[in-house]
Amino acid sequence: MGDAAGVGPEIIAGGWSQLVKMNTCLPAVYGHPEILRRAVKLLRRQIEIRQIDNPAEAQPSEKIIPCLCCCSDDVLDVPPGTVSAAAGEAAYQAIISATMHTMLGKTDAMLTLPINKQALNLAGCHYPGHTELIAERCGVENFAMMLYLGPGANLKGKAGLAVVHVTLHVAMRDIFSMITSENVFAKIMLAHDFMLKMKREPPNIAVCSLNPHAGEGGLFGREEMTVIQPGIQLAGESGISVDGPFPADTIMHKARDGQYDAVVAMFHDQGHIALKLLGLHRAVNITLGLPVIRTSVAHGTAFDVAWQGRAETGSFIEAARVAAVLAND
Amino acid sequence: MGDAAGVGPEIIAGGWSQLVKMNTCLPAVYGHPEILRRAVKLLRRQIEIRQIDNPAEAQPSEKIIPCLCCCSDDVLDVPPGTVSAAAGEAAYQAIISATMHTMLGKTDAMLTLPINKQALNLAGCHYPGHTELIAERCGVENFAMMLYLGPGANLKGKAGLAVVHVTLHVAMRDIFSMITSENVFAKIMLAHDFMLKMKREPPNIAVCSLNPHAGEGGLFGREEMTVIQPGIQLAGESGISVDGPFPADTIMHKARDGQYDAVVAMFHDQGHIALKLLGLHRAVNITLGLPVIRTSVAHGTAFDVAWQGRAETGSFIEAARVAAVLAND
Repeated sequence: MGDAAGVGPEIIAGGWSQLVKMNTCLPAVYGHPEILRRAVKLLRRQIEIRQIDNPAEAQPSEKIIPCLCCCSDDVLDVPPGTVSAAAGEAAYQAIISATMHTMLGKTDAMLTLPINKQALNLAGCHYPGHTELIAERCGVENFAMMLYLGPGANLKGKAGLAVVHVTLHVAMRDIFSMITSENVFAKIMLAHDFMLKMKREPPNIAVCSLNPHAGEGGLFGREEMTVIQPGIQLAGESGISVDGPFPADTIMHKARDGQYDAVVAMFHDQGHIALKLLGLHRAVNITLGLPVIRTSVAHGTAFDVAWQGRAETGSFIEAARVAAVLAND
Repeated sequence: MGDAAGVGPEIIAGGWSQLVKMNTCLPAVYGHPEILRRAVKLLRRQIEIRQIDNPAEAQPSEKIIPCLCCCSDDVLDVPPGTVSAAAGEAAYQAIISATMHTMLGKTDAMLTLPINKQALNLAGCHYPGHTELIAERCGVENFAMMLYLGPGANLKGKAGLAVVHVTLHVAMRDIFSMITSENVFAKIMLAHDFMLKMKREPPNIAVCSLNPHAGEGGLFGREEMTVIQPGIQLAGESGISVDGPFPADTIMHKARDGQYDAVVAMFHDQGHIALKLLGLHRAVNITLGLPVIRTSVAHGTAFDVAWQGRAETGSFIEAARVAAVLAND
């Protein structure tokens, strides 16, 4: 359910009917039933929130949201759009329960809605975000985040477009030591394995350069030759269809036009600027390297518009669709 | 006219009618009349190429392209889509003539079509591109390039969107020493002055952060606090409407949606990825800091599609429109 003061609850209520109609999963919510009831009322939907104790009891329909109550009633006093320890604690408990159930095989995949890092901290949980918390619970140290945009809208590729980053949440000054041939190779392989599942045929992968104009033949940097190209070659020798390094500003619109199924970006902005322009409300985060399937909406809690009934449900629906594809693989 | 083997000639022929109908300028071409005749024939247009010796003689119409012959007939033997010294030399001569005439006030503005850097080098002219050559002829050492996308298509801002880069054609490793408060301030002022002309009212300017998530409060870098914020403050104190630093992936779609008229980017890819996704065929380059008005198409010679009659004219038309706005200011 995410942070109760954010857009999570109303996204569940607003997207529920479409989610059930996809008919590819049996969804249940981990959160607080009363918060969901408020969200349903806000959107004037005719949906019953049915509390369950075990995901096996879930009988979701367009008119019924099964919900496991994971937290105390303290969360009911949290005002919309505000940072609070109570909402942080409730979100934390829901994540813990969902992760445990998915680890145990009681559920096949988990989809997370936005939490607020500060609220999590106020609740005494010191994690940068969901991902680190889930990874810790899974006992995993090496994981990777992927941004994915499904087919449709202005994307021509039939399987959508994935972006994996060689570096992500680090200072720009620190990316250089992290961009190694081994890391470039590893991210190409992750992108390949994921898009193979989504496309059901070998995907085409493009790798971004680090420097403008791919270094203009060494004039603006040499990492393309010394680091990125060897990583690409290694992947090519493994039989992967992979090209590059390409200037990031020329490759993103080629990927949009269907020439590539996945792009390996060297740093955060290369991938995020493109994917957020192409589909801010449809983009999905997928955590790779976990023992569980975990997808997430790509946006935040949006406290500034939360509980006004205006939240977009596109990313939620896409995150559910992708989780179901991966779980049914 | 740009490189005769590239898309320049056919873009002039294909876009000429629309250019004249804008009725905001009296265009004349600097190049070789015979190359233009071939381009007109390729596109099956009924346009006469009329050779002139002085721009004052230009009487352009939908049916007449006035052309100053700037080079020898050697260029007539250059095959389409190939790098040659002859085309490099012809392009060089045309640039020199146009720059000289604009410096002397014989023309009000110049618009350049793509040249090939290698062809220029083969002709003995060792410049990275047009801009450095024109700046040298103008006796200018400090200049800046701006990318501009006019209103329309998926842009909501009524005056379009400009992007100025604090660093541009340098290795990523070298950007850190170049991102100073003074440079951030200077680029904000350039963006402001340009968009004031285009919008005819005070523009709103957004400044990108350098690090992901604007450094996440110092967790991923501190340049936002130590360097960028002071530069923004300096501009704000001058009465400029300027906000930031914002994460680049969240600000570009806000700019697209009309919240900002200009974005100051910290490095090449931040601006170019966004503007090429928003309007690859409409984007325009503008050189700021020259004593002459100079705009340029934002694409290259496109040797792979040149002389096939498929070149897009949108960027050319926009570059002419912007040059006319600036010249009539």
